[in-house]
Parts: sequence; C-alpha cells; structure tokens
Amino acid sequence: MKISLILGHPNQNSFNHAIAGVAKETLEKNGHSVYYHDLYREKFDPVLPGSEIPQDAHLDATIKNYCREISNSDGIIIVHPNWWGQPPAILKGWVDRVLRAGVAYKFQENDSGEGIPLGLLKAGTALVFNTSNTPEVRELEVFGDPLEKLWKDCILNFCGVKTFYRKMFRIIVTSTQHQRSLWLKEVEETVNTYFPVPADLSQ
Amino acid sequence: MKISLILGHPNQNSFNHAIAGVAKETLEKNGHSVYYHDLYREKFDPVLPGSEIPQDAHLDATIKNYCREISNSDGIIIVHPNWWGQPPAILKGWVDRVLRAGVAYKFQENDSGEGIPLGLLKAGTALVFNTSNTPEVRELEVFGDPLEKLWKDCILNFCGVKTFYRKMFRIIVTSTQHQRSLWLKEVEETVNTYFPVPADLSQ
Repeated sequence: MKISLILGHPNQNSFNHAIAGVAKETLEKNGHSVYYHDLYREKFDPVLPGSEIPQDAHLDATIKNYCREISNSDGIIIVHPNWWGQPPAILKGWVDRVLRAGVAYKFQENDSGEGIPLGLLKAGTALVFNTSNTPEVRELEVFGDPLEKLWKDCILNFCGVKTFYRKMFRIIVTSTQHQRSLWLKEVEETVNTYFPVPADLSQ
Repeated sequence: MKISLILGHPNQNSFNHAIAGVAKETLEKNGHSVYYHDLYREKFDPVLPGSEIPQDAHLDATIKNYCREISNSDGIIIVHPNWWGQPPAILKGWVDRVLRAGVAYKFQENDSGEGIPLGLLKAGTALVFNTSNTPEVRELEVFGDPLEKLWKDCILNFCGVKTFYRKMFRIIVTSTQHQRSLWLKEVEETVNTYFPVPADLSQ
C-alpha cells in the first residue's frame, strides 16, 4: 500500500521526529511505500493564497504533487505536537492547501457550497500521533481535547476516511528515555496493527 | 483604550474584510486606538522556527513588535473564516509566534512546563468574528463547533482574557447583500457594547 506520512515539528531531534521515524521504518518493513513529508525540512509554505481557493485554480507543481500523493494514498499518518489544541501552522496550511475541493472532497452538483460534502480520499485508515505537555485530566476538563474532533470529524471523516485512530503521548517535557522508548514501541505496534504486511506477501 | 484587531483572510474584498473594516471604524469612532493587522496583506510568516521556542529566544523586530502590541492591548478582536474548524494557517501562526511564553502566559517558577499557566495579557475582553458555510445544526452535531473552545479556552482564557464573545456568521456563500448589511450592523453593535466610548469621554 501507499501511505502518506506527514510530520509538522521544527526540531529535527524532537520526539515527534522519532515517532515519524519509527512509523516510516515500520511501514517500509511491512512492504508499504511511504510518501514522507517533514514539512519544516521541506520549507512547506502554509499560506493558502486567494487564487488557490477556486476548485479549478492553477496550482504550482509542488502543491499539485502533494495533491496527487494524497489522492493516491491508501492510508495516512499524521505526526505533530499539540500547539494551542491545534496543529502547528505549517501543518494546518498543508490541510488548507492540499485537502482541496476536487481532491479531498466535493459537493453535490446542485449544491452551492453550503451542503453535505462527499469525501474523495481513497485512504481507508488514518492514524494521528500527537505529543503534549498537558496532563490528561486538565486536557479533557479545561480544553476538551479539540484535536480529536478536528482530525476525526472536521478533516478526515469529511474527506471520506472511515477508520481513525489517534494517540496523544504525554507528558513529553518530563518523560524519561525509558518512557519514550516504550512509546516508540507503541507507535510500532500501532502501525503494525493498522498497516500490516499485506496478506499476499505474508504467506 | 488600545485594541488589537487581527484579520486572517486572503481576499481583500471578502466579507471578513468588511467585518474587520466595520470593527476598526467603530473602535476609532469610540475613541480607541487600533493595532490593525491584515495578516495576508502584511505577508505574515506563520511558521514558528525551532529557535523561537525558548522563552529567552532572540526574536526578529517584526515579531517583537507584534508581541509588544498584544501586551499593550486592552482588548482584542479576531476575524477569520472557519477553515476545517480552525483559523487559516496564517492566523494559527500568529498565535504560535506572538502569544509566546513570557508574553501571553507563563508557568510558575518551580514548574517544569507541564503545569498550570498564568495568563499575562492585560486585555480584559476579546471578540471573535467568524464566517462559515456550514449550517448551524450540522456544525454543532457533526463538528462540535471547535472554534468556540479553541479561542475561548485553549487560547484566550489561557492567556488571561476573562471576557469572551464570539459570533459565527453563516451561510456566507448564499447570503444576500441585505443579510450582509444586517450582519455588519450587528458587528458595529457588538463592538459598541464591548468597547464603548470610555466614560470620561462620553460626558
């Protein structure tokens, strides 16, 4: 299968990068090909220009390529820290620019844009790995864990992705090396569960 | 009073720009001074670099100025469309870069970063005006209106802003000129309510 793996964190030695690295290795070990994008490393420009809003807009080659890849993906993995209950701006801009009308969703012919969308992504499964420095009780009671609804309902289900699993690792800032290695083991197991060796290769 | 007015929409002739224009006029009519930022027009760079994460990081003059203004503001008005239950990336990046530790919030001395923040903004009131093409019932039932919690709890209350009012105007794409003019009237009334002529000037 083809899997898009999208990472949004500025520091190359971050735990987010470690998560993405383990996810990439595990996918490749299982025989999948990976569209890997470290958005900071690629200097992705997250600012959607007005000219890109129309569905038939002219897109530059970079954005066209991102769109082609996400359309071709059988699965999606997103990795980012919790910044203000949202992804970092660079990753929000990937959503704004790449998950376009006509690529990731469309509206019915007789709909003027305010109605029910039809998801266009063929990816059946998406995993989201987040990191956080907010204790779980406080996250749920004070902030309501907005990342869950954002990724699950507002973005991925909207685009037609049916199976969704998300894990928030916490507390990063005070975590030990041992704890982090257990978390990376969990990432590996999760990727193995959702994107195993395809049946025709595993015999 | 000094009011920060932050706008995130790519099209200069958008209804978002009309909202921001009315808000600015009303504030000025009432004797307030306005820090007005049309982030697209200013080509604001929303990508927080890793080097800016430490609280004592070196900041460029542009970011320093945004930080100084938000610290000086007695009130805040935010205007943006609902893109995926979140602000456009350019505005998310303003949050990431400007509402910094040491500027907008801080943690206790003996806290290693995972604890309870202390809001530092002196602004007592924030207004958020959003536009949307999603019907209200669908917004509440399917998406849970994440913008409410994001701005109120995850961002503004976190930074110490106590009074919060938000209005989502909908459905923009099918709205008439008459409806839009009523909405702009409502913006004016809301700004008059929360940021009236100061008592010492109104006699």
